[in-house]
Amino acid sequence: MPEEKPYLTGRTYIFKLNKGDDLLNELQEFCRDNQIKCGIIKGIGAVSCATLGFFDQKKKKYNKVKHDRAFEILSLLGNISLMEEKPMVHLHASMCDDQGGLVGGHLMGGTTVFACEIFVQELVGAPKMRKLDKVTGITIWADCKE
Amino acid sequence: MPEEKPYLTGRTYIFKLNKGDDLLNELQEFCRDNQIKCGIIKGIGAVSCATLGFFDQKKKKYNKVKHDRAFEILSLLGNISLMEEKPMVHLHASMCDDQGGLVGGHLMGGTTVFACEIFVQELVGAPKMRKLDKVTGITIWADCKE
Amino acid sequence: MPEEKPYLTGRTYIFKLNKGDDLLNELQEFCRDNQIKCGIIKGIGAVSCATLGFFDQKKKKYNKVKHDRAFEILSLLGNISLMEEKPMVHLHASMCDDQGGLVGGHLMGGTTVFACEIFVQELVGAPKMRKLDKVTGITIWADCKE
Repeated sequence: MPEEKPYLTGRTYIFKLNKGDDLLNELQEFCRDNQIKCGIIKGIGAVSCATLGFFDQKKKKYNKVKHDRAFEILSLLGNISLMEEKPMVHLHASMCDDQGGLVGGHLMGGTTVFACEIFVQELVGAPKMRKLDKVTGITIWADCKE
Repeated sequence: MPEEKPYLTGRTYIFKLNKGDDLLNELQEFCRDNQIKCGIIKGIGAVSCATLGFFDQKKKKYNKVKHDRAFEILSLLGNISLMEEKPMVHLHASMCDDQGGLVGGHLMGGTTVFACEIFVQELVGAPKMRKLDKVTGITIWADCKE
Repeated sequence: MPEEKPYLTGRTYIFKLNKGDDLLNELQEFCRDNQIKCGIIKGIGAVSCATLGFFDQKKKKYNKVKHDRAFEILSLLGNISLMEEKPMVHLHASMCDDQGGLVGGHLMGGTTVFACEIFVQELVGAPKMRKLDKVTGITIWADCKE
């Protein structure tokens, strides 16, 4: 494993999202507005519908599923890095419905907030930059100079 | 989205809970004893039973389910804010049982620790204050002055 | 509950793991190479197979299950402490497969990375030391002097 350089912690945020917000878009916008180029995100809350992806490792594409019912967000976990020089949020979520059924996956646009509590920790150092990786078919990190 | 002010990181704790502890009550007490008014919590571990809630977004009330068996805690995630001027812990959890079945929800009293490893990060800044929100029926954050 | 001493935050890392890596072994090695004795870890990503444990609280032993298919990692959460004076990583994970099925448990060797994004926060203070606890049958934390 290559040597990793430590980062410094930058700005720290804790805030709520509002009913009706698109969860992914709102976090994406928050990071772009505040120019958070590198960091981690987590949160809990509830949504009125969820759109989640699963990456098909053989076909190298995301399968997208829209779940059109209410969920508690059990965990929302991810990070911020750069893609084509803009902050990009990458989040995975697990959720449960009112019947006790659990769903999860890669968070996509089309997930509507009922109420969410979000934590963002900016990291200061060489921001990670997403580039398409031909082996896996996904965009993965390379270090880049600021 | 309104502008958010960054917080500073305060005290950082990592500690275990003991067999027989009530998971939520113990964390609640920890935050009150140490006067942690704002922060984040996470943890992993195992419990001998779990009491979890699901908020019914239409009826505006929590449905509570007691699961009377052993679970691994896959994720315990949440935060600390003020409610009626006292520190209040809000946590969501996902857990799995010995048959591979997953459950999750809003952590409630009546969840008994088998062994838990907890991380608490205090945040310093305007503490979030929970107030009942008539639109959703839940207590959500407003900023307040210290 | 006994009084807990706060920790300081030490080095902060964010990095990727590569296709084919053994998830647990790689993180274990990272912590040993960098002499991270105490800290927290989290991550998201995808794996091509997963080996997860469930601790049987009555028989006091781990049951191990190998899931031989692809998963998204919804949450990878855990910590670093010392066991026999060496850094030891303890992680729980929840994952979902391409049919929407969720699995979870105590992460074991034999979980193969497809792509993973990892966050490690070192904590500086009295490192936690794992020792076998006769009551539960697992290794739990005692504080130790550096």
